[in-house]
Amino acid sequence: MSLINLINEINKKQSFLCVGLDTDINKIPSFLLENEDPIFSFNKSIIDHTHKYCIAYKLNTAFYESNGLSGWASMNKTIDYIKKNYPEIFTIADAKRGDIGNTSKMYAEAFFSNMNFDSITINPYMGADSVKPFLEFENKFSILLGLTSNVGAEDLQLKKTDDDYIFTEMINSSKSWGDASNMMYVVGATKADYIQKIRNIIPEHFLLIPGVGAQGGNLHQICEYALNDSVGIIVNSSRSIIYASDDSFFAESAAKEAIKLQSQMKEILSSKN
Amino acid sequence: MSLINLINEINKKQSFLCVGLDTDINKIPSFLLENEDPIFSFNKSIIDHTHKYCIAYKLNTAFYESNGLSGWASMNKTIDYIKKNYPEIFTIADAKRGDIGNTSKMYAEAFFSNMNFDSITINPYMGADSVKPFLEFENKFSILLGLTSNVGAEDLQLKKTDDDYIFTEMINSSKSWGDASNMMYVVGATKADYIQKIRNIIPEHFLLIPGVGAQGGNLHQICEYALNDSVGIIVNSSRSIIYASDDSFFAESAAKEAIKLQSQMKEILSSKN
Repeated sequence: MSLINLINEINKKQSFLCVGLDTDINKIPSFLLENEDPIFSFNKSIIDHTHKYCIAYKLNTAFYESNGLSGWASMNKTIDYIKKNYPEIFTIADAKRGDIGNTSKMYAEAFFSNMNFDSITINPYMGADSVKPFLEFENKFSILLGLTSNVGAEDLQLKKTDDDYIFTEMINSSKSWGDASNMMYVVGATKADYIQKIRNIIPEHFLLIPGVGAQGGNLHQICEYALNDSVGIIVNSSRSIIYASDDSFFAESAAKEAIKLQSQMKEILSSKN
Repeated sequence: MSLINLINEINKKQSFLCVGLDTDINKIPSFLLENEDPIFSFNKSIIDHTHKYCIAYKLNTAFYESNGLSGWASMNKTIDYIKKNYPEIFTIADAKRGDIGNTSKMYAEAFFSNMNFDSITINPYMGADSVKPFLEFENKFSILLGLTSNVGAEDLQLKKTDDDYIFTEMINSSKSWGDASNMMYVVGATKADYIQKIRNIIPEHFLLIPGVGAQGGNLHQICEYALNDSVGIIVNSSRSIIYASDDSFFAESAAKEAIKLQSQMKEILSSKN
């Protein structure tokens, strides 16, 4: 998907919501376990009920890999289903991949060619040549870790360097590897005070902001610093949407939570204009 | 596998060789493509012919994922085959995983519980809580990126900080997350001059050293700095062993290359004692 198509979709839907499909076999409604592929059945219902309110779906690969071969099959079926039925929606493989060049090339083939994801999250710690193979695909996005939402961000990313912090060195070093048309950054919503700093370094890149909801991030606070003229953010919520209820109305409950966030987003976008 | 069993195997075989199964469908002998699972057929032959000379196999997950569902199946079959036939051999999922706690837990389940790998490589950029779920498994190893062998290591890992370098900050910060019985570090063989520095910070941890062979690392130079009293290193070679020839004797050719390295290792170990 091109950047312009993504921005158009955001403006059309007045939403910058990404629904995170962190689908856990132990958390989905138990009646789904009778289905042939409960994970896909769950995802399909969630997608059918939430696609009007979000502009992206993010599949956390770990949740699929933990189910082995059948989990990988569920991931395939889910991305195929989205691409076939809702091609206007941006898709993210939240895979945190990255390795030496010949290996990153294989990951890019796996996620961009074989599975047709629009984007993949990448751990850029190994440097430019570990990211380059992903950037060679047209209309695909590499979403680099900018600053993560977990406590462990303190262990390295938030350490001071001569100039600033390790995470700002990372963003400064990597921002020229691609541009806003093929790169984005993950920035944890729990770090609102750092978002302004990041916006100053990369005014144009989209930010993928996880951590709203279960992890405690605040939407209004984030938007104050993170929005740019092209909106410039995708805000992800996983658990608080997809596990809103575990009864037979789980998908409707998810839709309600998605609408809540979309309404807030619409309001924020209106007040900005 | 326990640390003591790994050390015993190294001493018994007089080898610290890991054979990297970076199996690429485009590089294996073409006659194998007629088999039902060419990737597994190739791996099985390589394993049967090299297991006497090596103490570990490393599966680069990207090469399997790039073949989608069937690739994941080949990876499953390969790890099962090693565990069943050569349980004395240490197995490494070269997966460079790592994410927030609840997600790393899923990766740990995928690779340690479901696939029964003895170890997994981890990108520790996200900090302690991204590694902890892996460390909770007994007799399993988390192999953290210490310093990688690629050019891109310059982009962040080799940047200077107040105290030293980013990669030494990483090793210093992470060394107390576990100990030598459940943690190792990846250290690129192309960075021999930094190995001594790393050994001083972590005298007891095993180092997994890729980059000997195709990537240009020198075995004798590495050993001079990296060996410790428990040997303390696993040296990986992938392409120069498994693609030694592409005729019907590919597995015998691989064995010859493995023997060459094992002989050098035996000599090095003898001269140390």
